[in-house]
Amino acid sequence: VRLEDLTTPALVVEAELLEHNLATMARALPGERLRPHVKAHKCKELALRQAAHGHVGFTCATTVEVAGLVRAGLGDDLLLANEVLDVERLRRLARSRARVTVAVDSDETVAAAAAAGITEVVVDVNVGLPRCGCAPGTAGRVAEAARARGMAVRGVMGYEGHVVGLEDRARRVELVGVSMEMLRQAHANVGGELISAGGTGTYDINPWATEIQAGSYALMDSAYGRLSLPFHQALTVLATVVSVSPSWAVADCGAKALGMDHGNPTIEGAEVWFCSDEHVTFAPRDAVRVGDRIRVIPAHVDPTVAYHERMYVAEGDDVLETWPVDLRGW
Amino acid sequence: VRLEDLTTPALVVEAELLEHNLATMARALPGERLRPHVKAHKCKELALRQAAHGHVGFTCATTVEVAGLVRAGLGDDLLLANEVLDVERLRRLARSRARVTVAVDSDETVAAAAAAGITEVVVDVNVGLPRCGCAPGTAGRVAEAARARGMAVRGVMGYEGHVVGLEDRARRVELVGVSMEMLRQAHANVGGELISAGGTGTYDINPWATEIQAGSYALMDSAYGRLSLPFHQALTVLATVVSVSPSWAVADCGAKALGMDHGNPTIEGAEVWFCSDEHVTFAPRDAVRVGDRIRVIPAHVDPTVAYHERMYVAEGDDVLETWPVDLRGW
Repeated sequence: VRLEDLTTPALVVEAELLEHNLATMARALPGERLRPHVKAHKCKELALRQAAHGHVGFTCATTVEVAGLVRAGLGDDLLLANEVLDVERLRRLARSRARVTVAVDSDETVAAAAAAGITEVVVDVNVGLPRCGCAPGTAGRVAEAARARGMAVRGVMGYEGHVVGLEDRARRVELVGVSMEMLRQAHANVGGELISAGGTGTYDINPWATEIQAGSYALMDSAYGRLSLPFHQALTVLATVVSVSPSWAVADCGAKALGMDHGNPTIEGAEVWFCSDEHVTFAPRDAVRVGDRIRVIPAHVDPTVAYHERMYVAEGDDVLETWPVDLRGW
Repeated sequence: VRLEDLTTPALVVEAELLEHNLATMARALPGERLRPHVKAHKCKELALRQAAHGHVGFTCATTVEVAGLVRAGLGDDLLLANEVLDVERLRRLARSRARVTVAVDSDETVAAAAAAGITEVVVDVNVGLPRCGCAPGTAGRVAEAARARGMAVRGVMGYEGHVVGLEDRARRVELVGVSMEMLRQAHANVGGELISAGGTGTYDINPWATEIQAGSYALMDSAYGRLSLPFHQALTVLATVVSVSPSWAVADCGAKALGMDHGNPTIEGAEVWFCSDEHVTFAPRDAVRVGDRIRVIPAHVDPTVAYHERMYVAEGDDVLETWPVDLRGW
């Protein structure tokens, strides 16, 4: 199969760039220093590649992601880095042969994990991003509640999501320090061997975490592309130009093929005007023709991948492999 | 099954409100006056309900949507209102027993349709939205090209997508007139019985079109909700509160469960701060507790539905039916 044979829109992964990204990260954060976050690609085959680069544990955002990695034989050390109240779903994970650790940040999430038969947790701590996680000062109490129900507390996690995307590196360095000081305080009251944190934007400036939860580094997107990281844009959406007007053109890659929460995608050599459901309207610098194939770079990789059934791994114009995006849904 | 048994996030359709929307539209635009656009719901079962309300033809944005309606027995008069260059895909539609009409706006799209054995086309005309469609002055030439290749030209289509969402009704009325004057001029040079146009925002102010392509009216979203239309918000995303902090709460409905191209969703009685991949952070006016179920209203229904495998049709707390969102993908 060649790229020209693919129905568009289609996710295309450049094999060489993916390999570069995985190898670069594995050198910087070898083995257990990285706990790759699969939410960024939702693809078992890609997780197997990350495991081949020496990473033992994985980070997941949903129970579907955890269950998929268990089926892929990657169940050595899975962290569900999210609060889940669904006891039935958690019970299925607890009954699997995998080692599954679950994030908790409240009495309710502790109770759900315990009721499901989960045996290991980490305490999720808010380190500045207004999302999940208990206040650093209450982390010790949450850990006690978990231990009181017979669960082992492996440590803390705290995602500095408000920091990872800052373009000014000095500011990133400063604020990750502030966040990790909050996490360190929480850890002092919680104990355990894990201090899990970080993302692609802080992978090399967060020495406080024992492990980094980066995911986007594998495929990348235009938001992280602005940060001068050593990772290349390995994923693009292949699209077909379907209509050309005097001052703009239209390709078949729209808001149902792209995560739009970080804004419009980019197209090299063109200015993107807007996306509709199935279209991107753009002004190309050089003329394009109806039928031309173009590459669209998503602003945010995670919700882009979640729209697609498969990704095609390519070398030049050859499709080497087709990988199902099989960890989607809930 | 009851709503409380559903895994979240989950699309929930209020049966009564859906029925109200379908009946209200069928009264305003009975039978062939409406050609419902299935891209807004991507659901065969919902299309069957629209057919039960008397609509004979349907509008589609992808070949997958067309093929799905054919399988559902709804192939009486299907309009693929989009430019498609993929001859193989078009050939499969041409070989089906359905009546499939395809939009063309260039020599290339005419050639692809002819090569695929498509026998009927409409000329897609640009009426002001910078997207697909030929200039009104060239529509006659495109029609000639199609007839020269032996295809019947059923008329014109032109989507006033830059008008349908305007909140000022007087301005909507004015601009739909401008757009439809462009379409009328094109039609004069193209001929045929069809003048296909319009959307949910112009369904009652576009008397020039012979048929209206509205789709969002069935389920609605917060963007169309601002237009004082007689359609109710029939779709919400059911979510679970997973974490509560002193000034905000977090539910499990994020940017992978919501189309974000029209901005943040809304939550009644709360201010939405932002969405992450699997979370919405919001400030509730009244206290919420971990485990509470809430309803999230998407800003844009079409790309929201496209993330989900199924929608649940509910009456009160009872789930009456589960409908697969089976027209997804490409």
